[in-house]
Amino acid sequence: MNSPRHTKRVSKTITTPKGFLAVGLASGVKRSGKPDLGLIYCPDGAVVAAVFTTNRIVSAAVDVCRQHVKTRKVYAAVVNSGNANACTGQRGYKDAVAMCQCAARELDIDPHQVLIASTGIIGEPLPIGKVTDGIVKAAKKLSPRASAGLDFASAIMTTDTLPKQAVRQIEISGKKVCIAGTVKGAGMIGPNMATTICVITTDIAISKPLLAAALKDAVGNSLNKLTVDGHQSTNDTAMILASASAQNRPISARCPRYKRFAKALTDLCTDLTRQMALDAEGATRMFTVVVKGAASRADAAKAARAVADYDLVKCAIHGADPNWGRIICAVGSCGVKLNTGKLTCKIGDITVFRSGKPAKFDAQKASRTIARPQHTITIDLGAGKHTDFCYGCDLSREYVTINADYHT
Amino acid sequence: MNSPRHTKRVSKTITTPKGFLAVGLASGVKRSGKPDLGLIYCPDGAVVAAVFTTNRIVSAAVDVCRQHVKTRKVYAAVVNSGNANACTGQRGYKDAVAMCQCAARELDIDPHQVLIASTGIIGEPLPIGKVTDGIVKAAKKLSPRASAGLDFASAIMTTDTLPKQAVRQIEISGKKVCIAGTVKGAGMIGPNMATTICVITTDIAISKPLLAAALKDAVGNSLNKLTVDGHQSTNDTAMILASASAQNRPISARCPRYKRFAKALTDLCTDLTRQMALDAEGATRMFTVVVKGAASRADAAKAARAVADYDLVKCAIHGADPNWGRIICAVGSCGVKLNTGKLTCKIGDITVFRSGKPAKFDAQKASRTIARPQHTITIDLGAGKHTDFCYGCDLSREYVTINADYHT
Repeated sequence: MNSPRHTKRVSKTITTPKGFLAVGLASGVKRSGKPDLGLIYCPDGAVVAAVFTTNRIVSAAVDVCRQHVKTRKVYAAVVNSGNANACTGQRGYKDAVAMCQCAARELDIDPHQVLIASTGIIGEPLPIGKVTDGIVKAAKKLSPRASAGLDFASAIMTTDTLPKQAVRQIEISGKKVCIAGTVKGAGMIGPNMATTICVITTDIAISKPLLAAALKDAVGNSLNKLTVDGHQSTNDTAMILASASAQNRPISARCPRYKRFAKALTDLCTDLTRQMALDAEGATRMFTVVVKGAASRADAAKAARAVADYDLVKCAIHGADPNWGRIICAVGSCGVKLNTGKLTCKIGDITVFRSGKPAKFDAQKASRTIARPQHTITIDLGAGKHTDFCYGCDLSREYVTINADYHT
Repeated sequence: MNSPRHTKRVSKTITTPKGFLAVGLASGVKRSGKPDLGLIYCPDGAVVAAVFTTNRIVSAAVDVCRQHVKTRKVYAAVVNSGNANACTGQRGYKDAVAMCQCAARELDIDPHQVLIASTGIIGEPLPIGKVTDGIVKAAKKLSPRASAGLDFASAIMTTDTLPKQAVRQIEISGKKVCIAGTVKGAGMIGPNMATTICVITTDIAISKPLLAAALKDAVGNSLNKLTVDGHQSTNDTAMILASASAQNRPISARCPRYKRFAKALTDLCTDLTRQMALDAEGATRMFTVVVKGAASRADAAKAARAVADYDLVKCAIHGADPNWGRIICAVGSCGVKLNTGKLTCKIGDITVFRSGKPAKFDAQKASRTIARPQHTITIDLGAGKHTDFCYGCDLSREYVTINADYHT
């Protein structure tokens, strides 16, 4: 995935919102010597919210972060890559606490005022010495420059080939408000409550409950809609830090100002989600599955996900093959209510299956549609009025190569 | 999968049980010119039972066969490969009926006395002329020889690299009873009510309800326990024909004789299932996931399937990588009750995770265990007393190659 759409240098990063400093560096956890430690610092503190994986087995970082996110004001966030600190028992928990303690000591704050997240291999003890040495170094290099935000974005990458960043600017009560985010992919990504590690900064002034509500909605309509391999990680975390430095009149109700912020946040998260899909492990293209005519929203979501997760559909898309039979097969086996006599399927704007019967279509044109970097599959179940969607990507030999050789 | 364990010439085939003739030939449906039409004939008739896919969208053959399986005595079964006759609307249904009518005409029986199954590409109209011409030819070549059974086994193959056959012999009330079966793989295979197309012949005398019960149990503990890609086909059918030619005292109750037969049938189906797993699309090895200590049998089955279906586990097994973190991650995300403090995982007889903590183990030895053609992953959830299992196979680049290029 080295296409031009990715290589645009982003000058606005998570340090663009006022009130944030950042840094990213190599602590030595990654044997490759690549950056693996990111630190964000908010000198005046930030209101925070986060959503976490619903996996029953979670990393020590998630355990700790779930507690610290309750803190009224948080001043820092540490993210390490290269080691997930998951399935590491009591030692893992102590290491996660040690990360917070180290950052707190260096920044002269309370350990509970630090959020953390870890990503990388599961089940290996965290080389905590390297991580804390890295935090000490990082604290000295904090910077408000855009390049520091980019360094942070690079430091949280695992099998990503490119850092992912997005920025949105809106006006709230006459003040310029900025939201910026970064996310890491690129495998073990399935929906259901937060996907991957996503860090968002904003200078808006907003109450904690509303920030949490906005994040939950945004993630639900973006990150949670992406499935790369249907796999939910032990470490999925999306966090947002709001510094109030924009000095807008604080938002504390679901007013139009809140809605404007929530919309921009969803838009930002959708941008990040698309970047993840396009840089998913081994992916060469992404697709959106829209399911209409469902008996319920849950049915629509289930069917959309079933198609996006179906390996045979993903392989066909990799081969730019308009093999709609596999799409119909996925829909039929996922257990949703459907009216087979009304069932319809479109690839892009080409109807390939209409009212339960194959439609005549130009296979070459359909193949060209699929071969694009992004296309949409639309399915009408003919069973109701509800709609939902899911993002997916193709399944390639490269995905297997990456994941057969990841550990050893 | 060209290893010696597959290449053994099977001399006993579905014509080994007394009372059956068979044939397999090329009707021209497959563009490759390979065999694609199989016919079984039972001159004295057979008591039959079948289990079908639970996909809500089914092939016309399944629709027709569901009706015909109710017939008291059936005389023939036709299976075509190369075209699934699924998602083909009203025309597909007429074509399926035409297949039965043609066989009935040639064999001088009633169309309702013919079972059918189709497998191959979904959504293309069946070239019915080729199929009926093939049936006419096939009816003239019916033979009781073992080679005819092998020809049938070859004719139902799709992406299989080898025909799959198994035979079991038992004694029932002093009579030799034979059960023989063939099955086709090799992709779009997921559990939940019949997987793939499986045809079993036996010369036992047994009542229809008991034959159905024995088949359901056997399939539930064998074919339904295999997942290649978690995908349920529109055409899955497992059928059994019992000719009563062994002349045993007919079985009409759940007596010890029934139990002996049921056990042999399950054993036969397990044999066929293992052959399928080892010849799955792109697979280089298979594995069994045993889940113990579950709060319910359903939880045990769900967790076993979750691990066997987890692409990242399948990739790790392809790379002979004892990456147990992915196994634990799969268990944690599938929604079953578990006691993280007691959670234990073994690869072969090597404990890699004990009581919620990583165990020290010899990674080289674990890698060698995984590299074998078959190995077992055992997981103890520590949450109860129930057990279940699932068969799976590795995910290779070859699977992607096969399925990216299948259609065009």
